[in-house]
Amino acid sequence: MFEIKQKDNRGRIGLLKTNHGTIKTPNLMPVIHPRKQTIDVGKLGAEIVITNAYLIYKDENLKKQAIDEGIHKLIGFDGPIMTDSGSFQLSVYGDIDITNKEVIEFQELIKTDIGTSLDIPTAPYVTREKAEKDLDITLERAKEAIAYKNENNMKMLLNSVVQGSTYPDLRSLCADELSSFGADLYPIGAVVPLMESYKYSDLVDVVMSSVTHLPDSVPRHLMGAGHPMLFALAVAMGCDLFDSAAYILYAEDDRFLTTRGTYKLENLQEMPCSCDVCNSYTPDDLRAMDKKERAKLIAEHNLKASFAELRVIRQAIADGNLMELVEERCRVHPLLLDACRRLGKFAEDLEIYDPRIKKSAFFYTGPESLNRAEVLRHLEKLKNMPKKRDLVILPSSRKPYSKYLSDNLGDFYVYGCEMEIDIENTDFMVFDIPFCLIPLNLDEVYPLSQNESPKIKDTGALEFVENFISEFIEYYDQTLISSKVIKELNIGLYNIHNESNLIKFPKNDEQKVKDIADYQFGIGAGEALFEGDLKIEKSKKTGKIRHVYSNGELIANMRASDAFFVLAKEGARRLHRIKKFPENRVIVNKDSEPFAREGKSVFSKFVTDCDSNIRANDEVLIVNEEDELLAFGKSLLNHNEIMDFNVGQAIKTRKGNI
Amino acid sequence: MFEIKQKDNRGRIGLLKTNHGTIKTPNLMPVIHPRKQTIDVGKLGAEIVITNAYLIYKDENLKKQAIDEGIHKLIGFDGPIMTDSGSFQLSVYGDIDITNKEVIEFQELIKTDIGTSLDIPTAPYVTREKAEKDLDITLERAKEAIAYKNENNMKMLLNSVVQGSTYPDLRSLCADELSSFGADLYPIGAVVPLMESYKYSDLVDVVMSSVTHLPDSVPRHLMGAGHPMLFALAVAMGCDLFDSAAYILYAEDDRFLTTRGTYKLENLQEMPCSCDVCNSYTPDDLRAMDKKERAKLIAEHNLKASFAELRVIRQAIADGNLMELVEERCRVHPLLLDACRRLGKFAEDLEIYDPRIKKSAFFYTGPESLNRAEVLRHLEKLKNMPKKRDLVILPSSRKPYSKYLSDNLGDFYVYGCEMEIDIENTDFMVFDIPFCLIPLNLDEVYPLSQNESPKIKDTGALEFVENFISEFIEYYDQTLISSKVIKELNIGLYNIHNESNLIKFPKNDEQKVKDIADYQFGIGAGEALFEGDLKIEKSKKTGKIRHVYSNGELIANMRASDAFFVLAKEGARRLHRIKKFPENRVIVNKDSEPFAREGKSVFSKFVTDCDSNIRANDEVLIVNEEDELLAFGKSLLNHNEIMDFNVGQAIKTRKGNI
Repeated sequence: MFEIKQKDNRGRIGLLKTNHGTIKTPNLMPVIHPRKQTIDVGKLGAEIVITNAYLIYKDENLKKQAIDEGIHKLIGFDGPIMTDSGSFQLSVYGDIDITNKEVIEFQELIKTDIGTSLDIPTAPYVTREKAEKDLDITLERAKEAIAYKNENNMKMLLNSVVQGSTYPDLRSLCADELSSFGADLYPIGAVVPLMESYKYSDLVDVVMSSVTHLPDSVPRHLMGAGHPMLFALAVAMGCDLFDSAAYILYAEDDRFLTTRGTYKLENLQEMPCSCDVCNSYTPDDLRAMDKKERAKLIAEHNLKASFAELRVIRQAIADGNLMELVEERCRVHPLLLDACRRLGKFAEDLEIYDPRIKKSAFFYTGPESLNRAEVLRHLEKLKNMPKKRDLVILPSSRKPYSKYLSDNLGDFYVYGCEMEIDIENTDFMVFDIPFCLIPLNLDEVYPLSQNESPKIKDTGALEFVENFISEFIEYYDQTLISSKVIKELNIGLYNIHNESNLIKFPKNDEQKVKDIADYQFGIGAGEALFEGDLKIEKSKKTGKIRHVYSNGELIANMRASDAFFVLAKEGARRLHRIKKFPENRVIVNKDSEPFAREGKSVFSKFVTDCDSNIRANDEVLIVNEEDELLAFGKSLLNHNEIMDFNVGQAIKTRKGNI
Repeated sequence: MFEIKQKDNRGRIGLLKTNHGTIKTPNLMPVIHPRKQTIDVGKLGAEIVITNAYLIYKDENLKKQAIDEGIHKLIGFDGPIMTDSGSFQLSVYGDIDITNKEVIEFQELIKTDIGTSLDIPTAPYVTREKAEKDLDITLERAKEAIAYKNENNMKMLLNSVVQGSTYPDLRSLCADELSSFGADLYPIGAVVPLMESYKYSDLVDVVMSSVTHLPDSVPRHLMGAGHPMLFALAVAMGCDLFDSAAYILYAEDDRFLTTRGTYKLENLQEMPCSCDVCNSYTPDDLRAMDKKERAKLIAEHNLKASFAELRVIRQAIADGNLMELVEERCRVHPLLLDACRRLGKFAEDLEIYDPRIKKSAFFYTGPESLNRAEVLRHLEKLKNMPKKRDLVILPSSRKPYSKYLSDNLGDFYVYGCEMEIDIENTDFMVFDIPFCLIPLNLDEVYPLSQNESPKIKDTGALEFVENFISEFIEYYDQTLISSKVIKELNIGLYNIHNESNLIKFPKNDEQKVKDIADYQFGIGAGEALFEGDLKIEKSKKTGKIRHVYSNGELIANMRASDAFFVLAKEGARRLHRIKKFPENRVIVNKDSEPFAREGKSVFSKFVTDCDSNIRANDEVLIVNEEDELLAFGKSLLNHNEIMDFNVGQAIKTRKGNI
């Protein structure tokens, strides 16, 4: 019913299957007015729409027609249709004359693809008492609706809306409860007032406290979100669907939606985008038009601008630069930037969802980038890695650093005990923004080589790196810091080291492959994988390591694009021997064992457990419940997602039969 | 010939008049190939194009046709055409068989609208010797071309290209020299290699060192710039025209130009914008197409995306948020962000060109915003204003601060001598990001009220404010800082003040109008304007000050949107009396005196001098050379621009006859 095809951070490109076809997410459902609709949204690119079942129910003619001919004919759209239940009317008028069961039954009767139970949309900032009272009813009705649907074998998919006002713990509680009932989609409700009043930071809290308690295998819908400037941020928080009447409401008010915000026609002297409307008319043309004709054209622009942004977002997920897009889009309003910064507080959660390897380089866009998963993950790895006695910190140069290392490293200042240099007992690292320190043996590994930051550094980044290094050097007896680095940082007091001229990085390929393996698979992996008589084969063209053999047998290939290892059979066997169950492993059930052995891909539903440290794009071992090694491959999802999904691939198996 | 209609920072919306019509700048001139052109760029929105006169000259058939029928017929475009001279061919092939005079003569003969002399495009990073040698020839030829054009009364406009490689002083020297010859347009040449190698920071140095030495009244053309991701930055540096074959060259290589950078078709799974091509086809559709057909469609996208960006930029100039756009656009690549930061080094120059009052609020987008003109200007004003004995620093609240000031201000820490509080001898200011300190009496003045920054503050901003405040409090005997501010800042050591409860801001409208007048017109203006028996009238609806009378006579109106004063006649007279010549003044010549007295607008060419402190949108006095007050009005340009232009309005006169 729902499947993740590609992912970046919490954003995902998914496929949502309904009775009227499958659509790609993230996607926008334009609101169709069952009576007053003037825009053919399908022609303008809508693949799924939303309309209001309650309004149809209340109108005798519409109701009859919907029951007789189905809702698709009624609103003239043959793709997937979601219907809302009247909750919005309830929130506006206080009371409506339909019960929860009635509205469920009616939606199934008119053949909606996705129906909604009658939740209570609790406004932001109400009292806790009110929020809790409302939530009880919302949960009760959601439970009732799902039970009713199941009892009656209904064919439509069912929404259960997450409520809880602006109380993060109530949102989480609601999400937990709803998850236990098992709906088909989870809208996050009553957030429109937050968006209307630019409370984007609170929106982040509401969405994140909901999403982190919802299953990954079910699409989430940010109800009423229809402004393209918010889409990227919302997708990065894990929202898959948007719906809104904004395209037409704004148009009727002469307002243009763009990723840069809203433009009022009265203030425009130039058209704001590249769409057909913006190319064919001037603001003066539009001002001279009949109001209805104009609204239709502006609505066309609004939809095209919205769909274009969704395309850009899906492309960013595929490219692995969704966070760069979010950080760019959020610059259009300081309160959106505030929200982007707020999202930084959820960095640890986002790290879990972020693929370890991406197609795109890491672009630093400002201090917000310091919170990205890649940075967090690297600093964590640095802290946990075994340390030698001394540390040498070199200035940065062209990347990869080890390739462009200057012969003359200049003067070094010393921190800690002053001792004679012992190159063999020294870690060599390069000062880097934003990754702080990059061990020279790891400097080709993604994203330590594949990253770019401005040459003019901002105070936030410098302070961040300074703080990390100040703590990090305490692990060492002696730290030697290049005078070029000292110029940029503000750390302690130093003397010039009188043996600066002896400091030289000892290039050693055997150590390098071991360090990379430790970084990739965990400490100890390098020694275990690459024990024995090593042969390291390099590319003649690039000089980069390509294959590593031990005792004549291929252990692993190094991928040129990111310098991570792809295991060979013997590599997988060695990794399996050294790492303890369930580390680096995906465990499949008996039924799927033969398929895995044959090298077929592993589907989520056959996985019984896996290492909680698994991220998308990791190399993993596939074992049975007795920990027999069946195969190995690349994980397409992280631990949570693998465990949660019941459809779709989890592991692309590289080789079975080992 | 060239006129500025609207401006923001160094960016300007201009009108460029040619023999084939007037076009709006900033604009893009697509390159037309005189033989091989397949795209009708006019149909896709081009208003001006560029082609190569040398290529036409070298082809006997084209040459004959161009001479017989004119270049407009030859390339099928009836708007303005610029021609290049063969310098590019010179730079590629080393030598060409045409002289400077010949190419000038030929361009006039084929009725080009804007011709170019034969300069030497000196590549970036050549030796200084080479750059200087080339520059001598470039300057000599530019001089010769202009003389030749003038001798022969040629009708075309003439380009003189700024060269000088990557030596800022040579670029400035070249610009100075060319300015003295007096060309009609100034291209900035040989920058393509910088753009191709992402040396955007060096591009900033090259452009700024050129532009700051060119007259404001002549359009500048960034030669070969055709990537929409660069347009906003280039416009903010004062570039008016772009030209490029990128739209077709990239298209032939299956590359899409967008403001977010370049997308390769092979990596696309979604179309990247809202244009007709992106709406009508999928990447798969394009991949399945014949190469030529595909290139045509991608070229169409490339042009539409480029023209859309130019529209967005012109709108940003009109709205007064060009720098916000630049700071947003530059996030798409760290080296563009680096360039944006580099531009910060030219902040003092940009301040001179920045209007004092804008339509849009000031949006803080990151530490780069700390270099904006508005911030610089405010801090300069703060430093220069007269100070009382004590300073009270309050925490920020909702804006305008004085309206939402809490009754309970909490505890205050003391810095400096500890003395009894003397409220009457105390300046009250609010801690603000990024404006550091906002005097409460000025808190409605643009942009101190009309600005927004994220609630979660970045280290760069905090350090910036901290540094300013640390210095600023040294002006005072005693500074009382709210404990809420101390929590955010890291300044010195403090004791809690034992009279915190006595600290209360004494609201005083008379003081407020005087402080605003000082801030707007210079120190002393407030006392002079508002001496006598004051009556301050407020809006019944908003409670804001609207009119100030003295001794029964209207002195000034306060504009609701920005809280600046618009003078009445008596106000202008009083300001004239107190401020010394030429402060706050624009001096017009005898001929235009009667028109000014009648209240007609003042044209630049009649201005003989003006206060160097004048910025666009300032209220100014209009006087004759004997300093008789003729009228007063609003300046549309800054000092440099007023003095430099010979066409167009300088001052929109509000009232004459005084």
